[in-house]
Amino acid sequence: MKRIVIKFGGTSVGSIEKIINAAKIVKRRHEEGNEVIVVVSAMSGTTNDLINKSKKISEDFSKSELDVLMSSGEQISSSLLAGAIIKLGIKARSWLGWQIPILTNNIHASSQIMQIKTDEIVNFISRKGVAVIAGFQGITEKNRITTLGRGGSDLSAVAIAKFFQTESCDIYTDVDGVQTTDPSINEKAKKIDKISYEEMLEMSSLGAKVMQPSAVQTAMKNNIPVHVRSTFSEKHGTKIVSENDIEDKNIITGITYSKKNAKVSIVGVVDKPGVAADVFEPIGENNINIDMVIQNTSLDGKNANITFTIKQEDLKKTLSIIEKNKKKIDYKKVTHDDKLAKISIIGAGMIASPGVTHKMFRSLADEKINILAISTSEIKISVLIREELTQKAVKTLHNTFGLN
Amino acid sequence: MKRIVIKFGGTSVGSIEKIINAAKIVKRRHEEGNEVIVVVSAMSGTTNDLINKSKKISEDFSKSELDVLMSSGEQISSSLLAGAIIKLGIKARSWLGWQIPILTNNIHASSQIMQIKTDEIVNFISRKGVAVIAGFQGITEKNRITTLGRGGSDLSAVAIAKFFQTESCDIYTDVDGVQTTDPSINEKAKKIDKISYEEMLEMSSLGAKVMQPSAVQTAMKNNIPVHVRSTFSEKHGTKIVSENDIEDKNIITGITYSKKNAKVSIVGVVDKPGVAADVFEPIGENNINIDMVIQNTSLDGKNANITFTIKQEDLKKTLSIIEKNKKKIDYKKVTHDDKLAKISIIGAGMIASPGVTHKMFRSLADEKINILAISTSEIKISVLIREELTQKAVKTLHNTFGLN
Repeated sequence: MKRIVIKFGGTSVGSIEKIINAAKIVKRRHEEGNEVIVVVSAMSGTTNDLINKSKKISEDFSKSELDVLMSSGEQISSSLLAGAIIKLGIKARSWLGWQIPILTNNIHASSQIMQIKTDEIVNFISRKGVAVIAGFQGITEKNRITTLGRGGSDLSAVAIAKFFQTESCDIYTDVDGVQTTDPSINEKAKKIDKISYEEMLEMSSLGAKVMQPSAVQTAMKNNIPVHVRSTFSEKHGTKIVSENDIEDKNIITGITYSKKNAKVSIVGVVDKPGVAADVFEPIGENNINIDMVIQNTSLDGKNANITFTIKQEDLKKTLSIIEKNKKKIDYKKVTHDDKLAKISIIGAGMIASPGVTHKMFRSLADEKINILAISTSEIKISVLIREELTQKAVKTLHNTFGLN
Repeated sequence: MKRIVIKFGGTSVGSIEKIINAAKIVKRRHEEGNEVIVVVSAMSGTTNDLINKSKKISEDFSKSELDVLMSSGEQISSSLLAGAIIKLGIKARSWLGWQIPILTNNIHASSQIMQIKTDEIVNFISRKGVAVIAGFQGITEKNRITTLGRGGSDLSAVAIAKFFQTESCDIYTDVDGVQTTDPSINEKAKKIDKISYEEMLEMSSLGAKVMQPSAVQTAMKNNIPVHVRSTFSEKHGTKIVSENDIEDKNIITGITYSKKNAKVSIVGVVDKPGVAADVFEPIGENNINIDMVIQNTSLDGKNANITFTIKQEDLKKTLSIIEKNKKKIDYKKVTHDDKLAKISIIGAGMIASPGVTHKMFRSLADEKINILAISTSEIKISVLIREELTQKAVKTLHNTFGLN
């Protein structure tokens, strides 16, 4: 008998009809002879609706109360799904975070799972019951409700797979699997059959929305095979596995993009040790994420230019922070550019193929797409370009690297 | 320093604006120097919406999962209200049933409160915090969520007042207080300033919807002064107190009605011991509530007629139960009449005023209203009449007993 986790995303339980459909999938997996643990997100739209309610009261709504509020979304979907499974004649029961319990640290709105107690649920599933666990939520040692941050139900699912030592973790979602790129901007996007954890981690960090990065990370660390698949068809989806389990390695596995990036350049900074810290410390303290960073030294060696990218929405705040710290940083002027996009090519095979960088840049140049910044890792290359060229760049690269 | 419970009903927190308004009331009561425990219902409409969702899955939805589902309503309103109070600069925190815990028996959908742990909340309110407790919900000893049945937040409020030994319990609602009768059918209805627990218990059992009967009962048993008042004005409402605390006792305090009653007569039953049990046992086993019962013996002493009233919605089922048990009960025929109403006059003073019964019947007779059945207790007289005469009867009696 196999023990499995199956997780339904918000769109997979977005209506009563879809909940009934999800219950039928659970029934099928149960009848295959598996011990089934289901993890469920809130019905699509619920979490946003709850957040909007809180914002009408205060833009700075208490984080601990927001967690109480938001966790009700998964409470609703887990009880409805459990009821729908029972209706199909299968023993089932919902478990909320506090009932298991799923213990987290006490950082509200983005907490981390520390421990999951398993005995009650193991006992239940070993007697042919289906456990339906509310995703996204946990509790602190002091019995306060916490949530895991946006997309946190993926993380719940993988963490549950880890603590219950299940054989696999299936992520049921509204797409057929992980795509080589976003099909909404390139109709030639294809489903990827197998992808390594490392590649998936880059894909999800760099814009592919199909799975939350920290969930991929947890799966990778614990070597849990993940299967991303559609709730609405029985087709094989995408298996996320260890690199060793992939026979035919593509040089490039996928192409991602993220729009709404902004670039800030601080021109004429006095080039002395600690200057980068002086720039980035106050920005980081304001919870603004810095993405790419480029530092050029001027020819005379006295001044430097520091360029970095951030999310468009953080631009205004960032500029005002730099302005406030003008004396300390000591610079000549600041320029900025918003409406930029980051395009990334990802592939575990690129380490062994030295020509990839060159091929990427040439391909973009041929289309007259100017590269404004570059960042690389062992398995990805990201470039910053003007936002309106996103689709053109994605299509070109998709073709160049043989993904069409 | 006084310790008080204040409870907000669903309409009092029915929108974000109303939640903010409720938070302001809490602030005012807190600034008066009280230790404040707030109990809150789900936002109006929420509970029905959740029940409808469950019914789309199954008309016979798992009761334990329904409790998980429904309790999310108070989870939402309590966290929103706590956030709104915090926004006003007052320390506040929500508590769900399981966090306190409020221990109940394990009868889902209509459980009873057994015990409430108080130390954590007492500690919090003694340090100037406002505790916001989700009404309607509790947990069993096995950590399953339970709910107290419709209107259960009133019961939560009174039980909390009992276990925390508060000085009073204020029920904030959408009306000014308890009325002498339903203002929607008699514009001469007046707010009652003070009413005894016993009278209130009859009022709420016989149709006045302002407070749940078992909540009144718990208040009575524990001598907790209850103040039913409007969320939308600062006017004095209705105080529900012990009879001894009422100086000017009215003979009649209020007049209630309930429509949609049905009457069933079983004609020609053989008059032998146990026959009433034979009739009512199978009906009771089907969870149908019998209200009034009249048994007449025939002149020859051999046969009897048994007449009883039930809710209109139970008529069909009741008739089929009687039909099924025809052999056992052994009767000649069954007649029935639906579209009947029950009109009740309630007053603790009627014990000392022998003329009340006569006055009531005369008053109805003068209006040509026929009485189909009568039932009485020490402090109320109920009569069954045709439903279409409800308003006429209420107006007549309201005038006759000096309530205009």
